[in-house]
Amino acid sequence: MGTAERIARAAAEAARRLAVVPTAQKDLALAALAGALARHAGAIRRANAEDVAAARRGGAGGTFLDRLALDRARIARSAAAVEEIRALPDPVGEVVRTWRRPNGLIVEQVRLPLGVILVVYEARPNVTSDAAALCVKSGNAAILRGGKEAARTNRAIAAAIREALGEAGLPDAAVQVVLDPDRELLLALARQTGLVDLCIPRGGQGLMKFLAENARVPVVPHGEGICHVYADASADVAAAVPVIVNAKAQRPGVCNAAECLLVHRAAAKELLPAAGRALARAGVELRCDPASLAILRRAGIRAIPAAPSDFGHEFLEKILAVRVVRSLAGALDHIARFGSGHTEAILTRDLAAARTFEREVRASCVVVNASTRFNDGGELGLGAEIGISTGRLHAYGPMGLAELCSRKFVVHGEGQVRS
Amino acid sequence: MGTAERIARAAAEAARRLAVVPTAQKDLALAALAGALARHAGAIRRANAEDVAAARRGGAGGTFLDRLALDRARIARSAAAVEEIRALPDPVGEVVRTWRRPNGLIVEQVRLPLGVILVVYEARPNVTSDAAALCVKSGNAAILRGGKEAARTNRAIAAAIREALGEAGLPDAAVQVVLDPDRELLLALARQTGLVDLCIPRGGQGLMKFLAENARVPVVPHGEGICHVYADASADVAAAVPVIVNAKAQRPGVCNAAECLLVHRAAAKELLPAAGRALARAGVELRCDPASLAILRRAGIRAIPAAPSDFGHEFLEKILAVRVVRSLAGALDHIARFGSGHTEAILTRDLAAARTFEREVRASCVVVNASTRFNDGGELGLGAEIGISTGRLHAYGPMGLAELCSRKFVVHGEGQVRS
Repeated sequence: MGTAERIARAAAEAARRLAVVPTAQKDLALAALAGALARHAGAIRRANAEDVAAARRGGAGGTFLDRLALDRARIARSAAAVEEIRALPDPVGEVVRTWRRPNGLIVEQVRLPLGVILVVYEARPNVTSDAAALCVKSGNAAILRGGKEAARTNRAIAAAIREALGEAGLPDAAVQVVLDPDRELLLALARQTGLVDLCIPRGGQGLMKFLAENARVPVVPHGEGICHVYADASADVAAAVPVIVNAKAQRPGVCNAAECLLVHRAAAKELLPAAGRALARAGVELRCDPASLAILRRAGIRAIPAAPSDFGHEFLEKILAVRVVRSLAGALDHIARFGSGHTEAILTRDLAAARTFEREVRASCVVVNASTRFNDGGELGLGAEIGISTGRLHAYGPMGLAELCSRKFVVHGEGQVRS
Repeated sequence: MGTAERIARAAAEAARRLAVVPTAQKDLALAALAGALARHAGAIRRANAEDVAAARRGGAGGTFLDRLALDRARIARSAAAVEEIRALPDPVGEVVRTWRRPNGLIVEQVRLPLGVILVVYEARPNVTSDAAALCVKSGNAAILRGGKEAARTNRAIAAAIREALGEAGLPDAAVQVVLDPDRELLLALARQTGLVDLCIPRGGQGLMKFLAENARVPVVPHGEGICHVYADASADVAAAVPVIVNAKAQRPGVCNAAECLLVHRAAAKELLPAAGRALARAGVELRCDPASLAILRRAGIRAIPAAPSDFGHEFLEKILAVRVVRSLAGALDHIARFGSGHTEAILTRDLAAARTFEREVRASCVVVNASTRFNDGGELGLGAEIGISTGRLHAYGPMGLAELCSRKFVVHGEGQVRS
């Protein structure tokens, strides 16, 4: 038996036990984990300092180092996140729906854990404790495979996790942190069908592509976030401008940030100068189609012509593509063609336009009169999230505890037979 | 562009339209299909007679020919099934859940179609109209690839489907019936990631294995049905016996039929002779562990010793493995080891035993005091089913219209931004 199969078999066995562990015992493990992270904070910081130094020597840049680095405050935030997950309701055993059949059978749909979750991520060591807590709370065994640049940090966090599982009387294999950086091992883990139930990648498109092409277990797709804000003919300019600025500029590097502003031609003359001025103040570069460019320039706002490739592009920077459309239908066509099914927003006062947009847009989150930035597990009210799916199978959008579960039918009879 | 990609692209385009078609238009298509099946019944029967004759010449046997053959009554039943699907509520647009966030955002989870469904089946031509109706009703485009032995029949049914789609103004590519028997084409279809959203196989384990190993799109797993009935210490013998007989013998060739009877040792002396007698009368062969064999033989009931391989085996015939267990825990261990996660039943009067069984058994359907045969979309009240999943991802158990859908978040705001 290879290493991957040994890890997966241990996880599958632990998953059988975890699936029926009482809520109190899982919560005990999470309380113990929050405590252990605090107690181990010194060791975690020392290990992390070594990882950061090595990455710096290797020439790693600012964003990368920022994601990798843990200080006292970040470790405290990780512990607090574990406590928040502990406080969420246990999804396992929840009766999602129940009904009665004409023959008297009572049918329930009851949540149960998926089984074994393989989480693959890069140099963000805070994912280790987060994913461990979400999997334990939802009764799943976790195999956590972080980036090699965070291996020392992950080893230190793994020690805290092991201690917490022991304190709560849960098996070690409930959470296995894989420190071996070998891609062959990752590949072998992602091929343990029948033992690993789901692979959740959290990372860049390279990792995503590698898993999508090579895994044999189901992989949650996490595509790009090419998100649009469409300002309808009836949009309230004063209300629309802060939403547009928030969608683009509040945190431009994340997947639910807007990449393109579509404006109905009837609203363009009034809305574009106001929005353009606010966006310019927020440091956003505007790449415009001819109609929007003319309006913005006439208003004295700095803007440049868009290249065709600027539409349908995920900038992840303070750059916004801008286009005037002739109608709601034009906006819907643009979104169907260029959107990535992540988050799409409409700003409107027209009820019929809002209803049409809600119904016709295929995206994990459709937003009416609010920022695209709300497509997030915490903001939508799911509690924490383990990842976000841009595919429609199993879960679409942020995945919380419920999305780490399946549902079984439970049938209560009094001797019924089928005729 | 190859044939598979052309088919998949046409389906994906049709799926975009179908996703937003009003309920009334989909229902019109289904009414038209029921009508067209009736009108085309003669042509379908003639085509089917050719398929049956060819299969018989090829040496096909009884069960196979029975599945392949359509007579007037079966075509009428297919048309009636389409009418029943038409009468089901439209799952698309259903608000599954709604809640309010502290910042005033109203969040909804709303059903939308998955997109493009590839249904792969063997020589059961009734699947063609069933699957077409289920996909259209749930707003999905269908690619239907039936067995080559039914190709003439499927061509005739496809003509009825095309006519119905045309009558309702739906695109031809909403339902594509693939008549080309080439396995390479099937393989290419099952690799159209990004265009085909889900593959649903309906057929034997060979087909299942071929798709599981070769497809790149998600495949609904459809494993064996190794189903147990466990008669607890407190089981009511008079009530238990008919359930045991029904679970095994009412239709032994299907996946939700019982393959193994487990009996608590405290109930064995009374229950086994009564059950054994009734099973023998129903023509069931009993393959027994030593403890159950002794009891049955003492009662003068014909039984033979079980081989080790009889436990965990899907007989699909009038054969039942029988074993005495020492406790509920022993039954749970046996089921965890030998069960296939399909359907598991307990017969008991003890509430605590029922609750433990419900909670601890990992199966798509857990049944208390009723026959395993109720694990079926129709019997559970889902309306029709397109297949049954023995995997926990996306859907576990029978898949109805809701399981052909995903859910998107719809957020209603009044200008909220994220801080």
